[in-house]
Amino acid sequence: MTAFEALSQILGHRFTTEAAARRQNARNDGHHPEIQPDAVAFPETTEEVARIVAVCAEHNVPLVAFGTGTSLEGQHLAVMGGVSLDFSRMNKVLKINAENMNVVVQPGVTRKQLNEELRATGLFFPIDPGADASLGGMAATRASGTTAVRYGTMRENVLALEAVMSDGSIIRTGSEARKSSAGYDLTHLLVGSEGTLGLITELTLKLHGQPEAVAAATCRFATVTEAVDCVIATIQSGIPMARIELVDEMMVRGFNLAQDTGLPEIPHLFLEFHGGPHAVSEQVSSFRELAEGMGAGGWAEASTTEDRNRLWSLRHGALPAITALDPGPGKRTMSTDVCVPISRLAEAVAVARTEADARGLLCTIVGHVGDGNFHCGLRYDPADPEQVAEVTAFSGVLAEAALRLGGTVSGEHGIGIGKQGYMQAEHGAALDWMARVKSAFDPGGILNPGKMLPPGSSSLE
Amino acid sequence: MTAFEALSQILGHRFTTEAAARRQNARNDGHHPEIQPDAVAFPETTEEVARIVAVCAEHNVPLVAFGTGTSLEGQHLAVMGGVSLDFSRMNKVLKINAENMNVVVQPGVTRKQLNEELRATGLFFPIDPGADASLGGMAATRASGTTAVRYGTMRENVLALEAVMSDGSIIRTGSEARKSSAGYDLTHLLVGSEGTLGLITELTLKLHGQPEAVAAATCRFATVTEAVDCVIATIQSGIPMARIELVDEMMVRGFNLAQDTGLPEIPHLFLEFHGGPHAVSEQVSSFRELAEGMGAGGWAEASTTEDRNRLWSLRHGALPAITALDPGPGKRTMSTDVCVPISRLAEAVAVARTEADARGLLCTIVGHVGDGNFHCGLRYDPADPEQVAEVTAFSGVLAEAALRLGGTVSGEHGIGIGKQGYMQAEHGAALDWMARVKSAFDPGGILNPGKMLPPGSSSLE
Repeated sequence: MTAFEALSQILGHRFTTEAAARRQNARNDGHHPEIQPDAVAFPETTEEVARIVAVCAEHNVPLVAFGTGTSLEGQHLAVMGGVSLDFSRMNKVLKINAENMNVVVQPGVTRKQLNEELRATGLFFPIDPGADASLGGMAATRASGTTAVRYGTMRENVLALEAVMSDGSIIRTGSEARKSSAGYDLTHLLVGSEGTLGLITELTLKLHGQPEAVAAATCRFATVTEAVDCVIATIQSGIPMARIELVDEMMVRGFNLAQDTGLPEIPHLFLEFHGGPHAVSEQVSSFRELAEGMGAGGWAEASTTEDRNRLWSLRHGALPAITALDPGPGKRTMSTDVCVPISRLAEAVAVARTEADARGLLCTIVGHVGDGNFHCGLRYDPADPEQVAEVTAFSGVLAEAALRLGGTVSGEHGIGIGKQGYMQAEHGAALDWMARVKSAFDPGGILNPGKMLPPGSSSLE
Repeated sequence: MTAFEALSQILGHRFTTEAAARRQNARNDGHHPEIQPDAVAFPETTEEVARIVAVCAEHNVPLVAFGTGTSLEGQHLAVMGGVSLDFSRMNKVLKINAENMNVVVQPGVTRKQLNEELRATGLFFPIDPGADASLGGMAATRASGTTAVRYGTMRENVLALEAVMSDGSIIRTGSEARKSSAGYDLTHLLVGSEGTLGLITELTLKLHGQPEAVAAATCRFATVTEAVDCVIATIQSGIPMARIELVDEMMVRGFNLAQDTGLPEIPHLFLEFHGGPHAVSEQVSSFRELAEGMGAGGWAEASTTEDRNRLWSLRHGALPAITALDPGPGKRTMSTDVCVPISRLAEAVAVARTEADARGLLCTIVGHVGDGNFHCGLRYDPADPEQVAEVTAFSGVLAEAALRLGGTVSGEHGIGIGKQGYMQAEHGAALDWMARVKSAFDPGGILNPGKMLPPGSSSLE
């Protein structure tokens, strides 16, 4: 029996080699080509995942996890063929443990779905990467987003996991206890491993109390440097920002084009404050005083829930707004993702702006600047080798600058197939030890092969 | 040339087989026997550590890291002989990055030494395991303590590491950036690995702003159950406690004996609140109202810094106070360390009290109850097989209860040689994958052999 016959036997019509399903799972929000798997499997239980892995291990068939296809570095693309393991049917919230402020979910649950189900509990799950990503995918890519400055990333918010390993065995890591010193931290090893070490089949996530009071506001600055200096001062002053997002003048122009917002086309900060009513008004006035002392103008508060939702939906509309700036047929957007220590943020942003201008690239800058993380959105024509060379060179210069400034090439988008070329420069000798982990956990090389570790770094190759 | 000759050549008088040094590094604050290494090395640089490891790898000599000898599960004991790598000469604070709120230290720096050096910066390092442990040891054992409820454990506070691996190579993990999605999380793999995967030679630690205002207080309850119920309600209500420590009636008696404190011998909570002045007074009154509504009495605030220091020095004097309760010659104290989800804390504490009473054991209960973590201090005579059997059985029953309640056998003391027997029960199939990590990182088995993973779990054995 072939692998595909065995998988059909296990899953029936939930295993398919039809073109539509394969095409569907080749979608990607990033700038990578749409690479199709040979087949798509739709498991409904952990046991099914284990049986699928066992079959693929026996037949040496690559397995690539698929959540919502919103990863930006091609993590879910079947670059070596094989089976796309689509978790869309494992989409149940299994248990809300309100008294311990955690929740157990299947990997296909999306963050918005989770927060809908939590609404009545007074609790929420804060991590917000923009896209309505699946929680399994968010854990696998160590996602974060606008609220990480306050609530941390997936690294800080995954308490425990269930995973299927490369031999089909099912393991559990971590527990509902808030801390443990018992053994190696396999939870954190799996978080961010992009499906290359194991397949996440269940997650226990920390929840947070819905803040009693929320305030949002925007303000603007004459230059990006002034805005960034204000962010640095804010973080250093200890104001516990819930969100502090930089939107540069080009990005504002995109918003104006895409959503007719009529904002002045100069750099903005989008802000949110969480806490008790007193704490929030203290935070707002502390921030406003600090910011206005550093040149901020146009202070505008989004006082109603609707206003706030409009503000963040604007911010989350960055990708279509970048498209609106240059909607030329066939064009794509490359999004960079460097993250630097907060004190070096202004330098990193200056490198980006100078390099983009020198290369004549259309470049928006937005970012989770409270973490030192920002994204340049670059429009280019993938069919034009010169433009491809320019954006690639830009991305490389920015990555080198981030490393020189003590940062990382990826704050939150991960490595996938997009950033493998920087792994050696970022990790040096540590890369060999990552390769040792990979070899030990997936000796057959069936779990998302061709991702994260650059070719040649693994002893398997 | 023998290994010891080679090490003498590298280190000169900083490598010794003298009895005094070997005895010194066999000390332990736990209940384990004083097992001596064959030799002690005192490296002064990372390069020296790398050369030592290379020699030991070549000659298959075990290497055990030593910080201050304050670990409680024998992590630093040379159970298979070999060299104790004493980090006391690598005790420099290398760089205070105040603008990024982090600090780079050598592993032999102790937490008190660090906070002394930070005093003028307005920043502090909060993790407080009681003992003035070395930061390398605290990272290696994933330590925490009284402030973890607010600031997290070493897991949350190590940003980056330098480590020497089993082949003598030097790696760097993580960076000063607050987040990253670039590659496997080797930082968190090394934190808590108890020197079995690599030797930590440099740490970059998160710092926190010294709180503008601090308040401390104590209150008391008629029963431990009432006190624990109050803790559960406090955590669930979201009051951001900086410290919330349970001290049971037996522990209070110990304090009274050891320090003549004259406290009523009923269960107490020791509390601390951090924040802005308004926030702190809000927190204090919210807590007090909640606690008094749940039966708390004897509210007493420690208003001056001196009063607060006295309070926490009392709490940190638990080990001598337990001794004072039963100072019989040759007696030792075993400290349990279970941690459960906060909602199950009352059940876990009830198991401890019932089991201790049924076995006629002298048992104090103290703990970082905001995390669901508590310690039973059991006095026993290691020369009396019956007493040894009783405390061992007690510890086993409590560990089983913690696992049944969804918790862990070790909240913060780690595994070492004391908790290996529970690793299979806690981790099940995941233990095999921990063994894979160990085999991949230390194929020669020279790094702290005989620790953490139970005998037989590694493919090396």
